[in-house]
Amino acid sequence: MPYPESWKGFQIEDPAKWTEFHLNELTPKPFGDYDVDIKILACGVCASDLHTVSGGWGEQKFPLCVGHEIVGTAVRVGGKVTLIKEGQRVGVGAQSYSCLECKQCKNDNETYCRHQLDTYGAVWPETGIVSQGGYSEYVRTHEHWVFPIPDGVATNKAAPMLCAGLTAYSPLVRNGCGPGKKVGIVGLGGIGHFGLLFAKALGAETWVISRTHSKEADAKKMGADGFIATADKDWNEPHTFTFDLIINTASSSEGFDLEKYLSLLDVHGRWISVGLPEGQGQEVKAQTFLSNGCLIGASHLGSRKEVLAMLQLAADKGIQSWVEEIDIGAEGLKTALTRLHNNDVKYRFTLTGYDKCFGA
Amino acid sequence: MPYPESWKGFQIEDPAKWTEFHLNELTPKPFGDYDVDIKILACGVCASDLHTVSGGWGEQKFPLCVGHEIVGTAVRVGGKVTLIKEGQRVGVGAQSYSCLECKQCKNDNETYCRHQLDTYGAVWPETGIVSQGGYSEYVRTHEHWVFPIPDGVATNKAAPMLCAGLTAYSPLVRNGCGPGKKVGIVGLGGIGHFGLLFAKALGAETWVISRTHSKEADAKKMGADGFIATADKDWNEPHTFTFDLIINTASSSEGFDLEKYLSLLDVHGRWISVGLPEGQGQEVKAQTFLSNGCLIGASHLGSRKEVLAMLQLAADKGIQSWVEEIDIGAEGLKTALTRLHNNDVKYRFTLTGYDKCFGA
Repeated sequence: MPYPESWKGFQIEDPAKWTEFHLNELTPKPFGDYDVDIKILACGVCASDLHTVSGGWGEQKFPLCVGHEIVGTAVRVGGKVTLIKEGQRVGVGAQSYSCLECKQCKNDNETYCRHQLDTYGAVWPETGIVSQGGYSEYVRTHEHWVFPIPDGVATNKAAPMLCAGLTAYSPLVRNGCGPGKKVGIVGLGGIGHFGLLFAKALGAETWVISRTHSKEADAKKMGADGFIATADKDWNEPHTFTFDLIINTASSSEGFDLEKYLSLLDVHGRWISVGLPEGQGQEVKAQTFLSNGCLIGASHLGSRKEVLAMLQLAADKGIQSWVEEIDIGAEGLKTALTRLHNNDVKYRFTLTGYDKCFGA
Repeated sequence: MPYPESWKGFQIEDPAKWTEFHLNELTPKPFGDYDVDIKILACGVCASDLHTVSGGWGEQKFPLCVGHEIVGTAVRVGGKVTLIKEGQRVGVGAQSYSCLECKQCKNDNETYCRHQLDTYGAVWPETGIVSQGGYSEYVRTHEHWVFPIPDGVATNKAAPMLCAGLTAYSPLVRNGCGPGKKVGIVGLGGIGHFGLLFAKALGAETWVISRTHSKEADAKKMGADGFIATADKDWNEPHTFTFDLIINTASSSEGFDLEKYLSLLDVHGRWISVGLPEGQGQEVKAQTFLSNGCLIGASHLGSRKEVLAMLQLAADKGIQSWVEEIDIGAEGLKTALTRLHNNDVKYRFTLTGYDKCFGA
């Protein structure tokens, strides 16, 4: 296989034209001793991609190639790489660097390292090169953020686990999800459906909390023990003081009556947000938390150890991501982002057909 | 001693005149089998008293006698009382009832019982009688909310522990305060000074976080390991990612840059508010918590078990509340509430001289 020093990828050049992808030549950072070059086979389409290219998260470094749910084949490994072997099927998620030396890094909290860099849109400190994502032929990543994919997990199912899956999995395991616990998942979208699948796999009683009943049948097929629709009158009443943990994956906080959601929590229960809605937040005061002494917070991705445990859990339990495949290409990307923008996806797009587009 | 069926107490009749106390006859709820009548010796002056009588917390049931940091002598115990003996020196705090049958009550979370009633201003369900507090001759309380005071703790020092002390103590022990932990106390007032004293007694490295350096000397005398003044430039920078737990006792959230305070927390550190500021809250979004995955919440009082443990800790470690004594009476109460309103107290008022006022 070739050892490329540049490669092609689909970039957005202007956030006002966030469905117009251009096939450009991308220059990666120089290859380092710990780097792995990966020939991409598939990439999930994350809401972050949409928020980024459409300008919803503020200014970005255009032109930009997004995509951070990458699965491919390791085609070249640096001289000091020990974690990955050439030829291995591997994944890369939303984070591609941290210092590996600070307290956070040494404590499996590398996702909270002050020097962490994103897989796309980050500036590599020494070269000034802007990192480019997985809507492309190759990606070059430090081995710490390259994860072997177990045989039991299909490429197109594994891809969206690398951001959406991890984003749901990490706060579940860090907040005690398991047998005897009652867990709620707010929002059944890309992240939410992984929240449901993983919470069930971890042994918790798992409920989906959605605006309407429209996704109830799907939730039950995915294994949900119960379903709550917040459009129903007094929807919270039968469930107050019963949830140990709620993972909030909602992509919007508009019209959100936070106190009603929090009333579902048992004493000192936790509400962890993993979506990053655009726009305004919500007003809270001490009184917001007083009826049950609950806690609210947010979670950012997860650790390498958690990625490996999640993928193994998926292999062991045969967890099937609900994905719809779309061929990569200017047309396919336009379709994927437009449909994602319209919430028309059940429950994640995985871009495939990379060999058709870029050559094997 | 007499077994009174009514007694005298100082009431506010109109929140517009919240310094005008009237000595009125108070009618308690009927004496029950589990009740204890207490002849009051001392009562702390809590910010809740001020928020309540001045209307800051909204409508109240006037005329009202406030005060919920009560120490006195048990002068009569109901036929089924087992926890308290006649003649014992005992305390009563801010809560005086819960159902004792629900999940919360059975789990030492009686402070989160849906049927909990406050020591003053609550309506007793069967009689409609409004509960009256400790600016009075006697108080009648169910034994579960009556606490023996250990010999080693003076009456005037014990009184403010029953609300302010417990409010600080409970979130400390529930959130892992102890050796090896770094704890911050925001605001050195009545609750804050107990936060400092108890966090130190529990073995944590304890810092006070205050607007200016004006209370630094007092904080050091109380045992603080460090002091941070938020008026200093870039005050948070040297301390980011270092605190395991911060107890926020600030009585106002005006001009409060919450994200700077949260930046002090280590990964998954906790920010627990125990003050109940009047007025607006603060806007938060998932991004607020993302740099360290911290959690925010609030805490309400504590359990009977925690009161007993706190008082024993105070006795064992010789913890000295910093109190200023004021004689109860219309004049003394006016002085106490006016000075409290002006933040002119170091660090808690205890009303004493009850025998002079009401007779022995």
